[in-house]
Amino acid sequence: MTSPSVTRGPTAPQILGRCRDLVRPALARAVRQLHPWHAEMAAYSFGWDTADGGPPPGSQGKGVRQALALLAAEAAGAPAEEAVVGAVAVELIHVFSLLHDDIMDGDETRRRRATVWKAYGTGPAILAGDALFALAVRTLAEAPGPHGAAAVRHLAATLADLVRGQAEDLLFESRPWTGPGAVRPREYRWMAEHKTGALLGCAAGLGGVLAGAPSATVDALADAGRHLGVAFQAVDDLLGIWGDPEVTGKPVHSDLRRLKKTYPVLAALASDRPAAGRLAVLLGTGDPLDAPAARRAAGLVEEAGGREATLAEAHRHLEGARRSLKSVPLAPGALDEILALLPFLVERAV
Amino acid sequence: MTSPSVTRGPTAPQILGRCRDLVRPALARAVRQLHPWHAEMAAYSFGWDTADGGPPPGSQGKGVRQALALLAAEAAGAPAEEAVVGAVAVELIHVFSLLHDDIMDGDETRRRRATVWKAYGTGPAILAGDALFALAVRTLAEAPGPHGAAAVRHLAATLADLVRGQAEDLLFESRPWTGPGAVRPREYRWMAEHKTGALLGCAAGLGGVLAGAPSATVDALADAGRHLGVAFQAVDDLLGIWGDPEVTGKPVHSDLRRLKKTYPVLAALASDRPAAGRLAVLLGTGDPLDAPAARRAAGLVEEAGGREATLAEAHRHLEGARRSLKSVPLAPGALDEILALLPFLVERAV
Repeated sequence: MTSPSVTRGPTAPQILGRCRDLVRPALARAVRQLHPWHAEMAAYSFGWDTADGGPPPGSQGKGVRQALALLAAEAAGAPAEEAVVGAVAVELIHVFSLLHDDIMDGDETRRRRATVWKAYGTGPAILAGDALFALAVRTLAEAPGPHGAAAVRHLAATLADLVRGQAEDLLFESRPWTGPGAVRPREYRWMAEHKTGALLGCAAGLGGVLAGAPSATVDALADAGRHLGVAFQAVDDLLGIWGDPEVTGKPVHSDLRRLKKTYPVLAALASDRPAAGRLAVLLGTGDPLDAPAARRAAGLVEEAGGREATLAEAHRHLEGARRSLKSVPLAPGALDEILALLPFLVERAV
Repeated sequence: MTSPSVTRGPTAPQILGRCRDLVRPALARAVRQLHPWHAEMAAYSFGWDTADGGPPPGSQGKGVRQALALLAAEAAGAPAEEAVVGAVAVELIHVFSLLHDDIMDGDETRRRRATVWKAYGTGPAILAGDALFALAVRTLAEAPGPHGAAAVRHLAATLADLVRGQAEDLLFESRPWTGPGAVRPREYRWMAEHKTGALLGCAAGLGGVLAGAPSATVDALADAGRHLGVAFQAVDDLLGIWGDPEVTGKPVHSDLRRLKKTYPVLAALASDRPAAGRLAVLLGTGDPLDAPAARRAAGLVEEAGGREATLAEAHRHLEGARRSLKSVPLAPGALDEILALLPFLVERAV
């Protein structure tokens, strides 16, 4: 009897790199189908625009969505290549949603560059988003193989979730910080499951669909992706307050300055610690916070347990993702790679 | 031998009314699947919002797209009911495109009411448009029967055309009136084929697809719809200059005041009549025209033959639609109804 040899699998950056290399040519081919103006805006968003000397290192994003689609297909027993159209579709939808969300949220920079609406104008950015949306649907609808129609259904259901989540997020803005109309942490969680969770769930689910996996496997993969998305959002919320400006490219405490209703703040306000009351007073004026006020607010969020609650939320959902993945039989190699990605995504916040 | 009895078929308003009655319940059911906020904006756009006393008569639109989908299915030998999902999808896409186009074009009123972005805000209108887009795809993707996947492919190809046409239209704005960079009438025609033609072509084509018609029939139906769309756009352009403000709900000469590059103006500028030069000077300042200048411009467009050329364009495309419809075998009753709709749509302009 021999004990299994302990081999070290590929690292998270290696896994992401392998997936990016598989998806990139198909993604570029899809983008070339767009009107040249829209292709230019898409390339700019993907960080491919090298006309002005190339993007700063690291600005291309990690490619978590595309990796998840490919690894999910492998986990369901198919070659990664089967899921490339799905990976292309989710990347296109991701950029579509960034383009439109940046307008809705008034965000002027992303990854240290002007957002598309800021660089090209609101109308062109709306239309480029629409073009990417249409291209994503078309990519799946025209996919060769027997699973294209099921893939389109999966994507269409995701898009419905996505816009519902974003609608709630927009509506949160006009709700009060305290009192009966206040946004509860569980409402925020619902929003995050739909807005951020939907697309990662779609990525993993599409991998399963395109691999021809049984519906229980597709559901488990999609569920894991959704959990990962919520964990991802929680980490993003932590970075929006305590992230290093050098890394995030945003000013320190930026979400607090802009009075964004994120999980750490909502969890803090919902606590019964005294700091919650002081935080409510500070936020209650409705005016954007200046730097000292934002620093004070960050301290109060932490004192009221908001930071801790958000980290716990992230870990709870990572655990949920692991549980979903273990609920169905999956190919061990790909499963290990998905599991290796999970902590990598949360490490950003620590 | 008896000569065929001359019976008078239903009138255009009767045909449109019958189709609206068939589609309305399914459309309302689809809209109810939206987030309540988006359902409200959709109802507002469809002219269903009766909360504030009901819309003014005639504000619901004619429902040409939905009628075309249903009649095309009947012409291809299937019951109209088979095409109801297609009619719902094109109506949803139509409203999606109105919501986004009104933002891009800065239009503040439509059918005498505030446009959605003006009434609800830009961000909410962008998102409601996205929600309608997603719902249209979902409606077809989840359609029962064997033709759902082909219908989604048809819609996806249409959407690609639609955004390309709108992109060109946006780019026209920043191009000069004269000289080598000027927009040529044939470029405008290409834009109209894509922007306006695509959706009417899609409506008719979807009717054929959902009826299970052979591809030659689908192509002929789609082609007829596309011609009708271009004719429709030409009529719209005439109304944008010479339409009765009482009927259009827009100020007289409104497209000229806003320096919109429409077919009558481009055709006038491309002519070699002396009025073309005077028109170029008047428009060339780049400033919006006041009422007397717009009246002068309208006179020059007419003098240079722009009005005449646009009417001819409309009639040429109506003829093209008739020709396409007659190129394949179609059920005579439904064909007659489609043919009866054609002049009705152009009469608006006379």
